[in-house]
Amino acid sequence: MILHLNKSIGCDRAHAIADSAKAFVIEKDDKFVLISSSSHKELDASYANEVSEHFVFENDMQLSSKKYINATREVKIGNTTIGGNTGNTLLIAGPCSVESESQIQESSALLKELGLTTLRGGCYKPRTSPYSFQGLGLEGLKLLKKMNQEHGLTVITEVRDATHVQEVIEYSDVIQVGAKAMYDQGILRACAKTQKPVLIKRGFGTTLQEFVQCAEFVLSGGNENVVLCERGIRTFETKTRFTLDLCGVSYLKEHTNLPVILDPSHAMGHAYGVPDLTRACIAMGIDGLLIEVHPTPKTAKSDASQQLNHQEFKDLLKTMQPVANSVGRKIV
Amino acid sequence: MILHLNKSIGCDRAHAIADSAKAFVIEKDDKFVLISSSSHKELDASYANEVSEHFVFENDMQLSSKKYINATREVKIGNTTIGGNTGNTLLIAGPCSVESESQIQESSALLKELGLTTLRGGCYKPRTSPYSFQGLGLEGLKLLKKMNQEHGLTVITEVRDATHVQEVIEYSDVIQVGAKAMYDQGILRACAKTQKPVLIKRGFGTTLQEFVQCAEFVLSGGNENVVLCERGIRTFETKTRFTLDLCGVSYLKEHTNLPVILDPSHAMGHAYGVPDLTRACIAMGIDGLLIEVHPTPKTAKSDASQQLNHQEFKDLLKTMQPVANSVGRKIV
Amino acid sequence: MILHLNKSIGCDRAHAIADSAKAFVIEKDDKFVLISSSSHKELDASYANEVSEHFVFENDMQLSSKKYINATREVKIGNTTIGGNTGNTLLIAGPCSVESESQIQESSALLKELGLTTLRGGCYKPRTSPYSFQGLGLEGLKLLKKMNQEHGLTVITEVRDATHVQEVIEYSDVIQVGAKAMYDQGILRACAKTQKPVLIKRGFGTTLQEFVQCAEFVLSGGNENVVLCERGIRTFETKTRFTLDLCGVSYLKEHTNLPVILDPSHAMGHAYGVPDLTRACIAMGIDGLLIEVHPTPKTAKSDASQQLNHQEFKDLLKTMQPVANSVGRKIV
Amino acid sequence: MILHLNKSIGCDRAHAIADSAKAFVIEKDDKFVLISSSSHKELDASYANEVSEHFVFENDMQLSSKKYINATREVKIGNTTIGGNTGNTLLIAGPCSVESESQIQESSALLKELGLTTLRGGCYKPRTSPYSFQGLGLEGLKLLKKMNQEHGLTVITEVRDATHVQEVIEYSDVIQVGAKAMYDQGILRACAKTQKPVLIKRGFGTTLQEFVQCAEFVLSGGNENVVLCERGIRTFETKTRFTLDLCGVSYLKEHTNLPVILDPSHAMGHAYGVPDLTRACIAMGIDGLLIEVHPTPKTAKSDASQQLNHQEFKDLLKTMQPVANSVGRKIV
Repeated sequence: MILHLNKSIGCDRAHAIADSAKAFVIEKDDKFVLISSSSHKELDASYANEVSEHFVFENDMQLSSKKYINATREVKIGNTTIGGNTGNTLLIAGPCSVESESQIQESSALLKELGLTTLRGGCYKPRTSPYSFQGLGLEGLKLLKKMNQEHGLTVITEVRDATHVQEVIEYSDVIQVGAKAMYDQGILRACAKTQKPVLIKRGFGTTLQEFVQCAEFVLSGGNENVVLCERGIRTFETKTRFTLDLCGVSYLKEHTNLPVILDPSHAMGHAYGVPDLTRACIAMGIDGLLIEVHPTPKTAKSDASQQLNHQEFKDLLKTMQPVANSVGRKIV
Repeated sequence: MILHLNKSIGCDRAHAIADSAKAFVIEKDDKFVLISSSSHKELDASYANEVSEHFVFENDMQLSSKKYINATREVKIGNTTIGGNTGNTLLIAGPCSVESESQIQESSALLKELGLTTLRGGCYKPRTSPYSFQGLGLEGLKLLKKMNQEHGLTVITEVRDATHVQEVIEYSDVIQVGAKAMYDQGILRACAKTQKPVLIKRGFGTTLQEFVQCAEFVLSGGNENVVLCERGIRTFETKTRFTLDLCGVSYLKEHTNLPVILDPSHAMGHAYGVPDLTRACIAMGIDGLLIEVHPTPKTAKSDASQQLNHQEFKDLLKTMQPVANSVGRKIV
Repeated sequence: MILHLNKSIGCDRAHAIADSAKAFVIEKDDKFVLISSSSHKELDASYANEVSEHFVFENDMQLSSKKYINATREVKIGNTTIGGNTGNTLLIAGPCSVESESQIQESSALLKELGLTTLRGGCYKPRTSPYSFQGLGLEGLKLLKKMNQEHGLTVITEVRDATHVQEVIEYSDVIQVGAKAMYDQGILRACAKTQKPVLIKRGFGTTLQEFVQCAEFVLSGGNENVVLCERGIRTFETKTRFTLDLCGVSYLKEHTNLPVILDPSHAMGHAYGVPDLTRACIAMGIDGLLIEVHPTPKTAKSDASQQLNHQEFKDLLKTMQPVANSVGRKIV
Repeated sequence: MILHLNKSIGCDRAHAIADSAKAFVIEKDDKFVLISSSSHKELDASYANEVSEHFVFENDMQLSSKKYINATREVKIGNTTIGGNTGNTLLIAGPCSVESESQIQESSALLKELGLTTLRGGCYKPRTSPYSFQGLGLEGLKLLKKMNQEHGLTVITEVRDATHVQEVIEYSDVIQVGAKAMYDQGILRACAKTQKPVLIKRGFGTTLQEFVQCAEFVLSGGNENVVLCERGIRTFETKTRFTLDLCGVSYLKEHTNLPVILDPSHAMGHAYGVPDLTRACIAMGIDGLLIEVHPTPKTAKSDASQQLNHQEFKDLLKTMQPVANSVGRKIV
């Protein structure tokens, strides 16, 4: 249940009511917003007449629900705003992993050449084997920061676990919570305490409700700049790496107020399918895309098979704007 | 393994070789086409020099493979051809079930008004409960035939089991093998003996390889007019009815030579998601769509929640051609 | 909803009420049993006072529900009864496919030597490729019949599709509805018209509710001799062929009144796991087992990797009775 | 690839070779054990003659593989050893969450009364909603420690994220890595640096290979006391909470050298199925069990529906030893 209290009630009284309702408190403009479990359906008589507005929910998708805010929230990523009525579909691109300065410079140059603004690159790779390349760590973060400073690119990178979440918050412009880490409250609670935008990837075994509830950890902790990212779920099918869940995206668009970004590269796992899937994603009317592109995919230290090379990416980009136009959106 | 034998070899010798190779035989234009298990990798010396061409495969996706025919096959549905270089995306629409003459006349009128040619409607419903509406059966088939005769519509309906496959072949212009029936060899072998087009729906628990191999039953039996239909697979996610597998569609487009049609209505299970998903499907560059539309969805005897009403369908149709244009395709 | 009407009401009136309630009718001992959709929750005033007893359900698991009959039904398989208070766990064994008379004689000899009574063997194999061995068909059925006549073995074989369901009903003592055919109403309705026991395998993509509802097709059609068989569901895990769903078995035991048989061979797909899984199944307190055993598994024409050889099967059998004893059951 | 080097080679040379082979190093008794990626198949000539033994693997299940150690490793949990030839099946029991001192005292008393040694209880609960009870945290850890000191019970509790991993290592006798945290390298690497036993739960969307590779993070970091725990995977079936994967357990027993413990409570999600499943697990011949039991399940702050009450647990315990006996094992 969400309660709105007029600010005039005062901080002490707001927190007293919150304690009594076992609720989180957010101060927002002219009001206090209290969020307690969705199992609470009735206002307590002891404070009912102090509540200016309240909202009841079937489950713990609350702050993220269209029943609370009947629109898509705006989130600012660098100088670009997505969501709301912007009609923007933000194209985030770059290699799976930051591997070296020369590589990430090449990637940055590609983005600049194409007029793109937002660079992705993993530094802490959540590899399933200890014997694979694990990412450059802090050195990678510094390279991304350099790309930001030298080229004005907005950078986004993934937190793997809570031990380095503060470093990522410090160096990266957007915090990506990876598919394997999205239940991690150490990360989510840290993300709630910054105002930097947070992109949460859906775990491949995660239901839509659990996914959205992870966002609630950040929202209820005080950071409203949350973006959801569908990147494929794990099913019985093995010819493709994962199964991109566009039905789930329809659900998220209908029922939540958070911008939705799609990652067709990880879902497909094979470069050949990325162009068709990218165009399909755009036609869904979504708020952004994450596409993996690498100067020389065959030598990539991770996800070699699914990254486009620079020419493939340029060819794909040319086909994106027409699809976006056809559904009234703009690739930015 | 597929072998090509020159027709001059004669029917007896072709069948003798086929027996020796445990192969199916198709007579095709100027040659005999022999198909045996993909586990055969080497030509037998006793007939090797009589083989004009041969093809080896990793698995039993053979006649359907792009390694055999490196293009999408053309299939004629009524007066429209899909596949090949046609660029056509065939829009098949109609109610889940044929419920009455007045209902199916309304559906036909809608299609005629919108310039559409192909009407769907179930007569033998594969309901999971014996206590639900099971379809009108033969009476429904006759109504569909009437729509074909009165309005010139191409009609498509589903075979539920082998007991009525001959009736469906007789009355329907396109034979639909349903998701729950697609392993049914009684149906597949009957479909192989007609030349009417066969649309095979992927089972919701069916791998892509099994799916394509079902098509091989029809192709190897002598009917080349086979179309694949992805309609959602069953995953752990329950907020939507099924999960539309567009990664799988990418795989099919890359690896098979069969036209691919998509059914977003069954995948989503909720009317609200059908428009976005339909546009996404079109942007994938696929060969056709199956959309459920009903004069009054709320009173529908099956699948009430996922059928569009007539106005929603008209609104959707207006948005389809622009997306199709953006990827060089035509809604027909 | 299930209604009981006293027999004295007369056949005509019973059917009149059934028509009005859109219900199936079964004559049973001293009463008429009417079954209509579970969406009916209220008795119609026009016949309410003629109803001796009625049962309301949440879904269309009705005749099979413990809410209707609060016990496990007894089903006679050959001379053995399972279910009820028998404590019997029936061990059904034999090869995946009937391949030749000598092979099936060897299998029969093994069963006789071990004091077992029930022989399995597939004649119509639901292979996923048209280019694999498809089974001996009617010739196989005749071989099974011969084993029944020569050795007194109860035989069970699978119906693949409705084209040969009458032959299987004629030749086999137990009708197996395979995992790929279990939605097939042509088969289910034919099984409803015999009184031979019917073993329905759960489809690998089939929910428990759908599974039980398939049994309702047979039960409501008048054949009460229905047994459920769990044989593994399809999940994301590929190291094993399927995933044996023992949680689902707990659900079936708690909520349905039908005997449950398990098939660890198909679930595992590898002979090495069959002994441990078999013992686990027995410890669940189930009504029977289907185990694949072949004279020479390596040369088997289907499912070579999962069949035990005769020695492995004998070794396994020795370990079965102690586990059965520990949970108060008897291997028969 | 795993290399064994004789200790006489000296620490410097061992590490030089490890650097050259991009390998982890463990000092073990009389040798250095070097582990590098399984993609390495050939010994480098520069050090080949210094290698006393080497092992090649198909994938990165290496230290955990039966191809490396062809037995189940022994792991000491408190005063009890599992694995090896002990035949022990360790019964770990207790509430889902530590809720209060009185509650955990009741649980401890139950264990003492029944002669059990190992108490479970969650302090950092990985809840999917921020608005649910999140566990007592450090206060809970201290209560567990108290149970250890007052009653001599071995205690096990779960790490939710890396922010509190050191506390759990300090207070708990066994470190449980939860199903949602098992990819977390911050946790896994911390666990590698202690010698306390680590129980890793399989994620519900995690393949067996990924699961075992998580164990490799701990093993290759120097802690050999690793136990695997299967607790149900997420499938399309929703009548039960998860699907206990006993086929997967067969795979783990056949291919890995790590002890395997099962958690039927979380898999089933309903108390009614726990007894049957528990007996099935024991009959699999596994090394341990995690069972949830609560003084008053209905008032439990988490997982209320799946916890047994004390009487149900006692009744279950009486049935466990006979099953264990039947497969040559001992409940401890």
